Amino acid sequence: MKRAGANTVIFESPPGVISAASSVGKAESKGPLAACFDVTNENDGISCGTWEHAEAALVKQATDAALKKADLSPADIQIAFAGDLLNQCTASTFGFREKNIPMAGLFGACSTFALSLFLAAAAVDSGMASLALAEASSHFCAAEKQFRFPLEYGGQRTPTAQRTVTGAGAAIIGKNSKKIAIRAGTVGRITDYGIKDMTNMGAAMAPAAAATIAAFLKDTNTSPDNYDMILTGDLGRIGSEILVELMRREYAIDIKKAHADCGVMIFDGNMQDTHAGGSGCGCSAAVICSTIVSKLESGQLNRVLFAGTGALMSPLTVYQGDTIPCIAHAVYLTNEE
Amino acid sequence: MKRAGANTVIFESPPGVISAASSVGKAESKGPLAACFDVTNENDGISCGTWEHAEAALVKQATDAALKKADLSPADIQIAFAGDLLNQCTASTFGFREKNIPMAGLFGACSTFALSLFLAAAAVDSGMASLALAEASSHFCAAEKQFRFPLEYGGQRTPTAQRTVTGAGAAIIGKNSKKIAIRAGTVGRITDYGIKDMTNMGAAMAPAAAATIAAFLKDTNTSPDNYDMILTGDLGRIGSEILVELMRREYAIDIKKAHADCGVMIFDGNMQDTHAGGSGCGCSAAVICSTIVSKLESGQLNRVLFAGTGALMSPLTVYQGDTIPCIAHAVYLTNEE
Repeated sequence: MKRAGANTVIFESPPGVISAASSVGKAESKGPLAACFDVTNENDGISCGTWEHAEAALVKQATDAALKKADLSPADIQIAFAGDLLNQCTASTFGFREKNIPMAGLFGACSTFALSLFLAAAAVDSGMASLALAEASSHFCAAEKQFRFPLEYGGQRTPTAQRTVTGAGAAIIGKNSKKIAIRAGTVGRITDYGIKDMTNMGAAMAPAAAATIAAFLKDTNTSPDNYDMILTGDLGRIGSEILVELMRREYAIDIKKAHADCGVMIFDGNMQDTHAGGSGCGCSAAVICSTIVSKLESGQLNRVLFAGTGALMSPLTVYQGDTIPCIAHAVYLTNEE
Repeated sequence: MKRAGANTVIFESPPGVISAASSVGKAESKGPLAACFDVTNENDGISCGTWEHAEAALVKQATDAALKKADLSPADIQIAFAGDLLNQCTASTFGFREKNIPMAGLFGACSTFALSLFLAAAAVDSGMASLALAEASSHFCAAEKQFRFPLEYGGQRTPTAQRTVTGAGAAIIGKNSKKIAIRAGTVGRITDYGIKDMTNMGAAMAPAAAATIAAFLKDTNTSPDNYDMILTGDLGRIGSEILVELMRREYAIDIKKAHADCGVMIFDGNMQDTHAGGSGCGCSAAVICSTIVSKLESGQLNRVLFAGTGALMSPLTVYQGDTIPCIAHAVYLTNEE
């Protein structure tokens, strides 16, 4: 790999997506992407005793489905990069506990899947692994309990709030992808515009997305016209509007035509009571590992710039009055045919 | 880089440690390694309003000291790998918030520094970065509050408990190290021997350390005699005994002569009331980035195999009755002169 500009890494003989699979919960299974997911669970408990175990079950389902599609076993994977939103990333730990795959734990909040995809591609490109796994997950009920209120409390959610996606995505990255290449990536810098409202994370994360997308475009000397889709994960409806506006004003770049957002795509804004849209590490993981990979495979999409966005606060930092530092990591995926 | 055996990665033109620095709290400043640390804080609050901010201050102190030693600025660092024990890794986030360095957040509990050192070396070796930063931190008071009891409660700690180190370590990795090379590394697999006692993490982590050390020795076709030191971070006294015994019984390898442990080294077992020894992401980070790097530089040590160990539970998984999954990552450091 080689560096381009101040922030971007180009994979000269690009690794690719060997297979990808997603597993989701009940609300996601009733959303617009329902038909795209590999595993749809009718019950968010997934026959587990706790929401946290249910999230670990999503991780296993997505991993197993991705391995099966590529006719691989866990022993074929030389490193997994995985992370989630739970304290101490336990959904990933328990999801991989019996898999016996060397594992690097990541934390990047909702940007985690972009980071794991980038590091998995870098691992393959560098010879660290011939096959690497990128994974991320989240669970609505586990996240509400941990970050906001237990569901039993019946708290009202604000209109700016996003709904944590119950889902996981797993992508197996290798040298010999038939179709989808990972051509480049940008690891983001922490951005903090002073937002303190934990129920408006789209607004907090939009500046990080703008900074990373602008850096990638500058480093690669490209413009939004060069992409079929500039996909953020997951700003939701409010954050998406802010992003488009911010990119115009601060960077004089118009991404409106190409822009899409995983958090907007995964739920039906009119029919599903999900407020500003989806969020959570599992949101972009499940969207990328289903519809985006499918469309890249079929050629409906050929050039996708994916920028995963993360709000790096904890409930404690919010209670202590801190602002919400955010980050966005970008990965550039192409159809190679 | 190239793979060796089932688990290990060899850096063929090894990146090295350009500079390393450590920052610690009060108890660590009174321990046997006091003279080795770059920054010693007399007060664990470090003039911050909260323990969490104090931990972020440790991160800044270590980073700044490492940059200063190498006469570098944050703009010279192309990627930082950093993590900690706090929920959502906020010590790293807030410690790096103003640094404007591209950042990959990691979670590996007390194994984090080994993972960040390995990934920083891999980033440099692969061309992802010309200079990369590896960092990890922990804080006794923040960790007690989060994982056990707030200090004000005055809870008694068990004899098997380890004391979370108040400290951070930062190492800058680059191509042109004058003296210390990172020659190889092993990313670990999750190991779970069914330990449920959160106050005996040395016992939980020892099997993970044993598995990773045995894998590294096998993959590199070496024996403990080939190393001046096989350094675990941080099993403490009880876990260290278990490790030596376990390696004899399960792998027929005797590491007793070469073995040392960061958690045992950092506190005085007789004079300091630290029970089974030190622990926390900051323990091995501060020990490696002080005495170990110094001794490698001076030639007092020439071949150090460092295996960072992490207990990947959260308080919630323990309350839910889960066992403690553990992991260990190894990095091999040598004096090149």
